Order: sequence, then structure tokens, then C-alpha cells
Amino acid sequence: MTDLAEPLVRLIDQLRKLPGIGPKSAQRLAFHLLRRSEADCRQLAQAVLDIKERIRYCSSCHNLSEKELCSFCTSPSRNARVLCVVEEPFNILTIEKSGEFQGLYHVLHGALSPINGVGPEQLRISGLVERIRQLGVEEVIVATNPTIEGQATAILLAQKIKPLGVKVTRIAMGVAVGSDLEYVDEVTLARALHNRNEL
Amino acid sequence: MTDLAEPLVRLIDQLRKLPGIGPKSAQRLAFHLLRRSEADCRQLAQAVLDIKERIRYCSSCHNLSEKELCSFCTSPSRNARVLCVVEEPFNILTIEKSGEFQGLYHVLHGALSPINGVGPEQLRISGLVERIRQLGVEEVIVATNPTIEGQATAILLAQKIKPLGVKVTRIAMGVAVGSDLEYVDEVTLARALHNRNEL
Repeated sequence: MTDLAEPLVRLIDQLRKLPGIGPKSAQRLAFHLLRRSEADCRQLAQAVLDIKERIRYCSSCHNLSEKELCSFCTSPSRNARVLCVVEEPFNILTIEKSGEFQGLYHVLHGALSPINGVGPEQLRISGLVERIRQLGVEEVIVATNPTIEGQATAILLAQKIKPLGVKVTRIAMGVAVGSDLEYVDEVTLARALHNRNEL
Repeated sequence: MTDLAEPLVRLIDQLRKLPGIGPKSAQRLAFHLLRRSEADCRQLAQAVLDIKERIRYCSSCHNLSEKELCSFCTSPSRNARVLCVVEEPFNILTIEKSGEFQGLYHVLHGALSPINGVGPEQLRISGLVERIRQLGVEEVIVATNPTIEGQATAILLAQKIKPLGVKVTRIAMGVAVGSDLEYVDEVTLARALHNRNEL
């Protein structure tokens, strides 16, 4: 790459650090940006800077927010009796797109993973019990990932929340809608059979 | 996406404008950057700005350069008797990686495409004849793409350069090294048969 101008080499190096961007993609993106206007490049650069400068975490649910409290926590139209616990802020996007949930969220910022040194102290669990009490929550839906870590986290949450007399539920695991049984893994299929519903 | 903080939505929008980055990738990249340090984000933003501020085109071969003349045009070790004509600056990278070429380059910044309004005037052809004379070039290798546009450009170049008594060659078209004949298209295979070499 010594035959390229230094600023271009540097941009390619920076782009390669992004997830899913290999050397070829980084090169293609850099050459693309080179052809774009200076105003376009400036907008992109500013957008990158702004997320670090302007985004913080909601002091109540730990979702991303520009203000002290996020748009969910301050919304009068959300049902504060139901709380959905997720691992990461972006999980909220998927749940919102489903249109099936009208309650509030709680973001743990991770899942239990002893092997990676993530214990209960590393998650945003401590404020959760207090929040459940204050809001008068009646049901906590645990929407952590359907992985070993997510499952372990769900069990831990159930242990902590059930003693409050609050219902704790877990999102259903089964075959994906629109999928083909031929390509479903056996663990998922076993779960789908076990969780079968009467027609 | 109204449930996301505005700076994050804006970054996702900016990232989506990049080639090969769909809505899901843009979202993943944005959340990734959010987790990176401010210093990391600053480096990326600066790299994006620098390519527009510090890179210009070599006044001789039109390759990318930080200075008036690029590293090839000022190199004493390159053979100025052979000139390789390419469509885009990044084509130089691939040719350099092959290790088969020691001459100088000339970047057209495009290929003839009447349907897209690209005629000879839109390409950096005008200075080429003069450059060939000044350098005392003996051979011009046309390494434009093996497409209709690249081929049309090659023919145009041959018409302009041959009258100078300079040899004009075209990179060989045929089956790719390491490829499987089963998956080679018939046009390429026809070319490979036609251009066969004696063993």
C-alpha cells in the first residue's frame, strides 16, 4: 500500500477497524469517499464525533439518550406496569419494530458470562429491583438473547425479581416465522416441540 | 427509528450512503462506534476529512498524490519507456501487487461510455500524447477494464497513440488463474481459446 497517498492509507486503516469491513471493503469505501464532495465527508465525520459528544445513557433504564431520561421513560403513552429487560440498547429497536410491546425497557448492557469476567456486578441490575418497586411493575419480560449467557441472565433475574411478587416471563423460543423446517437446528426444533401450543 | 437518539439516527443515515452498507450494517457500525473510545472516533473522523483536504491528483499521470507529482512520476527506479493506462487510481494498486510492471502509469479517470455522457473530453486523454512524446515512451499497455467501455477506450487510445510510432498493447483476457472451467462464462472461454498460446 506504499503506492497510495498517506491520508488514504490512514483512512483505509481506520475503516478496517470497523466490524465486517475487510481490507477490500475498506479500500472500496475509502475510494468512494474520495469521490464524494467535501461537504458529504464533513457530514459523515461530524456524525461520528456527535455520537460520542451528545449521546449518554438514560439514568433510569440505561437506554441511549441525549437527555437525562430517554424518550421511553418520559413518554406518557407507555405502560409502566410492564418492563422488558434487554441486553443491549439496539435490542430495543427490534422489539419496537415488532409492534408487540407498549411497556418500558431496562438495558443490562451485557449478559452474564463468567468466562469473560462478566458477573452480576458488571450488569445494570442493581437499580432494576428499585425501579420495579417505584413503577409498580406487574410483569417483567426477560428478552435477553436465546444463548447460554442470555439464559443464565434470565434465571438470575427471575431469582431476584420473583421474591417481589412480580411475574417474570421469558420470550418464547421456537422456529422462526417463515423459516423452513429443513434448515432449523435440532436444539431449536426440540424447544419448538416442547413449547407447542394447542390449535 | 424514532426511538433512537438523533445523533445516532444521523450517523446511521450517513453510513447508509456508503456503497455496500445496508440499513442493518449501518446500524451495526453505528452501535460499534458508540462503544469505541472518543479518541478512536476522532481518528476516524479526521481520516475522512484529511483525504479531501490533503489528496489531489498528480499533474503528470493524474494518480492520487499529496504533492504536485506522485511517487511513481518522481521515482528514479521506474521505467519511463513503458506506460500503463488505467481507468481509476485504485487499479494501480492491483497492478502493483502483481509485481509484473515497473513502468509509469496514466490514469484516465473513467472509460468511454456515450450512454452515460462520457466522451473522450471527459477522460484525461489530452495530456497523454504529449506525455508519451516527452518521456520517449516505447510501449503503452492499455489496462482498462475488460468491459465494453474499457474495450472502446482501448481502441480509441490505439487510434491516437499508434500514429506516434509507439507500440500499443492490451492486457490479455482469458480464464482466471486458479478458476474452474465449469464456472467460466462462454465469452471469456471463447477469448481464452482464441488467445491460446503454444506450449
